Amino acid sequence: MKKVIPRTLPGFMELLPQDQILFNNMYDTIKKVYEKFGFLPIDTPTIELSEVLLAKAGGETEKQIYRFNKGDNDLSLRFDLTVPLARYVAEHYNELVFPFKRYQMSKVFRGERPQKGRFREFYQCDIDIIGQESLDLIFDAEIPTVIYNVFQELNIGKFTIRINNRKVLNGFFESLNLKVSASDILRVIDKIDKIGPDEVVRELKAYDIDSIAIDQIMHFIDIKGTNDEILESLQNLNINNEQFKVGISELADVIQGMRNFNVPEQYFKIDLTIARGLDYYTGTVYETILDEYPRLGSICSGGRYENLTAYYTDQKLPGIGISIGLTRLFSQLKEKDLITENKRSLTQVLVIPFDRKDMQYTLSLASKIRTAGINTDIYYQDKKMKTKLNYANRLNIPYVILIGEDEIKLNKATLKNMETGEQELLTVEEIILKLTK
Amino acid sequence: MKKVIPRTLPGFMELLPQDQILFNNMYDTIKKVYEKFGFLPIDTPTIELSEVLLAKAGGETEKQIYRFNKGDNDLSLRFDLTVPLARYVAEHYNELVFPFKRYQMSKVFRGERPQKGRFREFYQCDIDIIGQESLDLIFDAEIPTVIYNVFQELNIGKFTIRINNRKVLNGFFESLNLKVSASDILRVIDKIDKIGPDEVVRELKAYDIDSIAIDQIMHFIDIKGTNDEILESLQNLNINNEQFKVGISELADVIQGMRNFNVPEQYFKIDLTIARGLDYYTGTVYETILDEYPRLGSICSGGRYENLTAYYTDQKLPGIGISIGLTRLFSQLKEKDLITENKRSLTQVLVIPFDRKDMQYTLSLASKIRTAGINTDIYYQDKKMKTKLNYANRLNIPYVILIGEDEIKLNKATLKNMETGEQELLTVEEIILKLTK
Repeated sequence: MKKVIPRTLPGFMELLPQDQILFNNMYDTIKKVYEKFGFLPIDTPTIELSEVLLAKAGGETEKQIYRFNKGDNDLSLRFDLTVPLARYVAEHYNELVFPFKRYQMSKVFRGERPQKGRFREFYQCDIDIIGQESLDLIFDAEIPTVIYNVFQELNIGKFTIRINNRKVLNGFFESLNLKVSASDILRVIDKIDKIGPDEVVRELKAYDIDSIAIDQIMHFIDIKGTNDEILESLQNLNINNEQFKVGISELADVIQGMRNFNVPEQYFKIDLTIARGLDYYTGTVYETILDEYPRLGSICSGGRYENLTAYYTDQKLPGIGISIGLTRLFSQLKEKDLITENKRSLTQVLVIPFDRKDMQYTLSLASKIRTAGINTDIYYQDKKMKTKLNYANRLNIPYVILIGEDEIKLNKATLKNMETGEQELLTVEEIILKLTK
Repeated sequence: MKKVIPRTLPGFMELLPQDQILFNNMYDTIKKVYEKFGFLPIDTPTIELSEVLLAKAGGETEKQIYRFNKGDNDLSLRFDLTVPLARYVAEHYNELVFPFKRYQMSKVFRGERPQKGRFREFYQCDIDIIGQESLDLIFDAEIPTVIYNVFQELNIGKFTIRINNRKVLNGFFESLNLKVSASDILRVIDKIDKIGPDEVVRELKAYDIDSIAIDQIMHFIDIKGTNDEILESLQNLNINNEQFKVGISELADVIQGMRNFNVPEQYFKIDLTIARGLDYYTGTVYETILDEYPRLGSICSGGRYENLTAYYTDQKLPGIGISIGLTRLFSQLKEKDLITENKRSLTQVLVIPFDRKDMQYTLSLASKIRTAGINTDIYYQDKKMKTKLNYANRLNIPYVILIGEDEIKLNKATLKNMETGEQELLTVEEIILKLTK
C-alpha cells in the first residue's frame, strides 16, 4: 500500500502526552481561577457564517481567515472569541443575566504566515463582562485582579500588569490640537518598546508634528514613578481637557480598586505608553509582562470597550475583557524552561503482576485503589519486568505496585516509590492511605 | 449602521451558560474516569492536510468533510478522532510508550444534512489503546470496564454494554459456505433493531441465500440467555471453523475479564446481532444502550482493530477503542429530561453590598472567601436589592452574603440560603466553614 507521510502543518502545535499534561494543567488552573471569580462558561461553534463572523472584520484580519463554502453556505472559522461573544450576547440577549460574566477557552484560527512563536491554531482564554447600557468602573479593577490570581497560581515568575486609560491618551492628544489623528500617534507610541524613543521621535516628525508638541508627547510618555506619583504628575500637567480629566479619575479609581482587592502594589503599574489597538478600546487598557522576560511581549492583554454588539443590535452593551494566548505562552515558557509545574503524570500508580496467573488478584486490587479515587494503570502485557518498570519510568508514574505469589499468599502488595526506589509490603488499605496522603 | 442578524448554523449546538455548566460537568466526569484508568491526553489540530486526513476515507465520509484551500494547501477539518490518532501514532512513534493509552475529547466536524439529533460539529470522547505488533486480550475487558465506570458516574439510568466478537460472526458465516460476503450479511443483521427479524429474512432472501442457511442465521442471531448460556449455546453449535472457535474463546475471556474487573453482570451482555461497521473491526465489538431508552440507539460504541496506521507506516499497530458522542448524548438526555446533575451553578456565593460605601469591606471579605477556595461573585452595580437578589436567583447561586452598615460595625456579614431563605449573621471564618462543608 502506498503510504502517506504522517505530518501536521506548520503553525499547528501538537504535543506529546507528557507536555500535553503540563499544558492541560495550565489550562485547568486558568479555568479554576476564572470560575472562582464568578465567570460562566460558554462554548460557541468553531464554524460560523462569514456574514456573521466578518460583520466587523476588514484588512489584515480578513486575509487571515479560514473561509470556505460548504453547500450554499459561506463559512469561516472563528479568528477570536470576541466576535462570537458579541454574536452570542446579541442572539441570546433576552435569556442572559447582566452583568454577563463569561469565560471561553477555545481554539481560534488565523492563517498567518508561519513564523517562530506564531500559531495558526491556538487557544485563547478569554474573560469578558458585559453590561446593559452601563458597566460599573469597579469591573476595570476586578479584571486585572483575576489576572493577578491566574498568574500567581500559574507560578511562572514575577509579572507586572501594566495599566493605562485611553481617555488619558485621547484627552492629552486632543489638548495638543494636532492635525494628525490620535490613532496615528498612538500607533507610533505603541511601538516604543520595540523601536525605542529616538525612532518614535523620528516617526512623529514624519507626521509633521512641531517640535514643541513632540517634546510634550515625549515628556508625557516618559512620566515615571510609583502609581501615585504618576497620577500626581498627570494632575500637575494641568491640562484643561474633559476627557483627560475623566481618564485620570478612572485610572485613579482602578488603582485604588486593585488595592481594595488585595493585589500587591508591585504587580500592577500605570504605563502611559500602552495603547492596545486603535478603534476598539475606549477606557482602561491592560498588558502583562514577565518582569525577567520583557522580550516575550504582553502575555495577557485587554481593555474596556463602549459597545460590544454594534454590528448586530441597537442595544448599547459596554464591556471589558482580557485574553491569555495560552498556546503561545506555553510554547514560550517551555522554550525558556520556565514551566515549574512538576505534576508530569496524571497516573499515580502502575500495578504490575509478575505473571499472568497473578492477574485476577491484580485486577481486584486495582479496582479497590481506583474506587478510592486514585488514578491507576495496570501493566497487562507479558513482558520482562524491566520493560514493565520502564513503562512507569517513561510515563513519570511516581509509584508502582508489584504483585507475585508471595504478595498474594499474604494478601498484600509491594509498593515501590519510583523516585527513591524504596519498597514496602503493604495491605491494600495501607497503600490507599499512603497514596491519598 | 446596517445590522447583521446574529445567528448560528443548523446542526451546531450552542448552550446557555446554565446548560453549558451541565454539559461541562458531564465532560469533566468522563475525563476524570478516563484518567483514573491511566489514559493520557492528546490534542491534535482541528485542521490537517487533506492528503493525511483522507488517506483512508472515501464515499459517504468524504462527502461530509469540510474541505477547503488556503494558500497552496488542501486542508480538511477532522471528521473523527481515530484518523488523527493513527497519524499521531505513526508520526510520533519513536517518542511514545506502548501500549499507548490515550484519550481525546474534542470537537469533530461533518457537513451532514441537518436533521433532528444530528450535529455537524460535535464532541467525541474517545479512548484507544495501541499495541506494538500485539495487544493483550485483557484490554478488551478493560475498555468496557472504563465505560461502565463512566456511565455509573454520569448517573443517567440503567445501561447495558452489548458485546460481540467479529470472529464469531465471520467464522459462523464462513462455515455456511455462502456465495455472498459476510459483510453483506452483517450489514443486514446490523439493522435488526431497526427493521425487525421478518425484514431481515426478506433481505437475506434477496441475496439468494437458501432457506436452510437463512434458518441457521436466524437461529444464530436468536440465541438468548445469560452470558454463560449464550457461550454454551455457541459451543453447542459444534461449528468446525477455526475463526469461530477463536471468537468464542475471546468472547469468553472478555466476559470473565469484566467479572474480574468487578463489573456487575447486569451491565454487560453478549449480543450476537452487533456487527459495528464493516471493514474496520476485527475482534471484540461494543455498543451501549440505555435500558429504558433503547430507541436512542447506541450511546457509546467501539471495538478492536488489527492495524491502526496501515495508511502511514509498515508497522503493525493493533488497537482497541471506544467513543462517546457527547454532544448527541447531551442533547438526547436533555430532551428526555434525564440529566440528574443538580450542580447548576459554578458560583457558590454572591456577595452583595447594600451601598457603594460598603464596597471596600465587601471586596476584602470576598477576597478572604475566595482564598479559602470558594467560587465567589460580587454584585457591584448600583441597583435595587431586588435586582441584586434576582441575579443570584437566575444564575442558581445557592448563597448570598449581604453587607451593610450593621454588618460592617460588627465585622460580620449576613449569609442567606437562597433555597430556604434562612439568614444568619456570621463572621467571615464562620461563613467559610459553612460554605466549605
